[in-house]
Order: sequence, then structure tokens, then C-alpha cells
Amino acid sequence: MPARIAVVQNILSANDERAARNRAVFDRAGVLAVNLMASPGAGKTSLILRTLDSLHGRLRLGVIEGDLASSIDADRAKAAGIPAFQINTGKQCHLDAVMVQAAMRELPLGQLDLVIIENVGNLVCPIEFRIGSHLSVLIASIPEGDDKPYKYPSAYRGVQALVINKVDLLPYVPFRMDCFREGVEALSPGLVTFPLSCRTGEGLDAWADWLVARAREKRAPAAP
Amino acid sequence: MPARIAVVQNILSANDERAARNRAVFDRAGVLAVNLMASPGAGKTSLILRTLDSLHGRLRLGVIEGDLASSIDADRAKAAGIPAFQINTGKQCHLDAVMVQAAMRELPLGQLDLVIIENVGNLVCPIEFRIGSHLSVLIASIPEGDDKPYKYPSAYRGVQALVINKVDLLPYVPFRMDCFREGVEALSPGLVTFPLSCRTGEGLDAWADWLVARAREKRAPAAP
Repeated sequence: MPARIAVVQNILSANDERAARNRAVFDRAGVLAVNLMASPGAGKTSLILRTLDSLHGRLRLGVIEGDLASSIDADRAKAAGIPAFQINTGKQCHLDAVMVQAAMRELPLGQLDLVIIENVGNLVCPIEFRIGSHLSVLIASIPEGDDKPYKYPSAYRGVQALVINKVDLLPYVPFRMDCFREGVEALSPGLVTFPLSCRTGEGLDAWADWLVARAREKRAPAAP
Repeated sequence: MPARIAVVQNILSANDERAARNRAVFDRAGVLAVNLMASPGAGKTSLILRTLDSLHGRLRLGVIEGDLASSIDADRAKAAGIPAFQINTGKQCHLDAVMVQAAMRELPLGQLDLVIIENVGNLVCPIEFRIGSHLSVLIASIPEGDDKPYKYPSAYRGVQALVINKVDLLPYVPFRMDCFREGVEALSPGLVTFPLSCRTGEGLDAWADWLVARAREKRAPAAP
């Protein structure tokens, strides 16, 4: 179906242009933008709330929440004192650059250092759509099982960090960490990973420190 | 973008026609076909393997497995003695009727009573694409959290049963069953649910009995 392919390519290319514009707006405001992706229920919103605590005020955090329906996530973020805007995508299975552009206008970018954009819970579709972020981060969660890198390889390629959430459940579910890490390494050699638990707080400091370092790099690029 | 909408509508309508043909093939073979949907890692393959045990030979089971990549799931099913065919969708986020049609040709339908079609792990895209099944079943899993009906309403509408997997993890994760059930009831009043654990085996008999009853109904429709 060449007509379908042409239409899809046009949509992707128009999206890429808008994503580049979003990124330029983040750059001008000195904001690091992170695209946070995961399966439904892997702990995206919990990670954002825990990140706020672990940053200890080192970065000023804002959030854009993407969900098909409801404002549950933005409400939770606002209740924690984070400037947040909720996007409802309806039936759309991923965020796109136009949606994020509209949400960016609702955030006080000049007063922020870091914006985490929580994508729709989906390991397939968000991968193909740029939204203007500087970094992409994937959350895997222990109860999902150790075979996910093998089954959803595109989600594990092209991300800059992997959070392995819910490590507190390791005693209660079958999960072969060696097998999981082997799959990740084959797809993204050397990928930085953060095993942690949003429930117990274990491992969150390393993740927050990494975000702080990335935001500082962005502000003061290393000499060539 | 009316051009895009027209293209999408044509694709859906062509898919529906092929889905109707798949269903007619299942009907002629006297096979009950179930479309099994869930997030990645909710336990679709584990449920299929446990179902085989719990059926105690009452139905002859076959499986069509859908994944972006790998043959892990079909290999597991075959190792358990289930006739199985693996579809690899590549980048496609859901099964469609053409893919299922090709897989059906590889199964000995005349020797089966029940075919479970495991869709790609995704709570959004599979909902819109008919594949020729008689029943759609959704698996929710406890560690995904109790807010999923509110965030992914389309996944909870239009299914004929809901399996609530991993109830053995209830003591270890925050999950308000009342809140979850309220969300489900609002979207699908009276929906039959099967709380169970593929790990411990708890609750599996009720689920298997339900499948047996549905398969019998199909063979001998009730008098008017």
C-alpha cells in the first residue's frame, strides 16, 4: 500500500519539524527535556514524584503528563507542588510534537531546569514519534518479566538510560536479571541503568544525580 | 487531515472484512477463538499455559502468538504440547486480520476446540483491529496499579471477560481493589472477572470452566 506509506511518512516528517521547534524552545529556556516511556503501570508517575524528593531542590522540575484519559497523573504531580499539565490523547497511542507544544505553553519554562514528559503507557508507538526532548528514558519493571528486551527491542534501542523499577518485588516474582541484562546489552551496549524501587526509595539517589549531571552538562557544554 | 482519516477508515474496513472471513473459518471448524489482550508482562503467555493445565483435556487448545520480535512465546506453548504459531509484527503495535489469517493456516483447526490469539502487549492499539475472534478477554495485573481502567478506558470496554492476574502480589503492592472494580463497572457494567494467580494457580479453575461453557454454548446454541 504505497499510498498509506506516503501518508505515514508525511505525518512523521511534519512531526519531526515541530519536534525540532519544541527542542529549540526548551534550549532557549535552558530546560533539559526528558521523554519518559514505559508499559502501563511500570511506575512513570511514581518515578516523577520520587525524583522530586531525591533532587532535594537541585533542579526545578516541571511535568507534562500524557494519558488517553483522566487527569490522575497531573493531579498527583500538582498535589506534590510540581508545575504540571495533563494531555489527554483520546484514542492516540503516543504523544506527538503538536500535543507537547501546546502543553509547553502552559508551563512556566523560564522558572524550570528540567521537564519530564510522561508518554502514554506503550512500549511500541511512542518510540517513532519525536516530541522535542533531549533525552529518552525507558522504565522496565520487575513484574513485567525478564523477556521484554527480546520482545520489544525497539523500546530498548535509542534510549539514553534505563530505569529498572520495582526491584523490591524481586523476591516474589520469577525474574532472571542476567537474562534481562544480556538482552539490554545486545540492543544498547553500555546503556546506563538504574535499578531502583519507587516504593522503598532504594536506588533513587543515583538516578537523581544522573539527571542533575545531565542538566549541568547542558548548561555548560564541555570544552572541545 | 481528511486524507489521513479516509486512509485509516479504508484500512479498518478492509481489515473488518477479512476478520469476518477468519471468523467464518473458525465457525466452520467448530473452534472458539479468543482475542487475549493486555499490557506487556501482564501474563498472557503464562495464562495460556496455566489454562492448558486447568482444562484437564476438556477442550483441545491451539495458540497464535503475536509479538514484535522473538519466538519465545510460541516456543513455550509448543514445549507444553500446544499447537502454536508465532506471528512477528516487526514494528506493528497490534495484530490484524491478515496476520491472523496466515497463522490460522498453520494450525490444525479441525483438531481443535479453542484457539487463543495472544495479541501484542499494548492497551491501546489492538482494541481497534478485529481479527475474527468470538470473544475478547483483557488481562489486568495487580502490579500495574488500580488506576488502569481510568487511564485506558477503551481497553475495558467491549471485552467479554476480565482476568485480574498476579493476585499473589496483593500483599506487596498498593492496589485498591474497590477503586479498580468501580472503574471497571463504570465502563463495562456486570463484566465477568476472574481474579487469579498464574504463579500459585489460585482462581484458574473458574476461568477454565468459563471457557469450557463458552465453547459448549457455541457448539449447541440455546433454544430461542
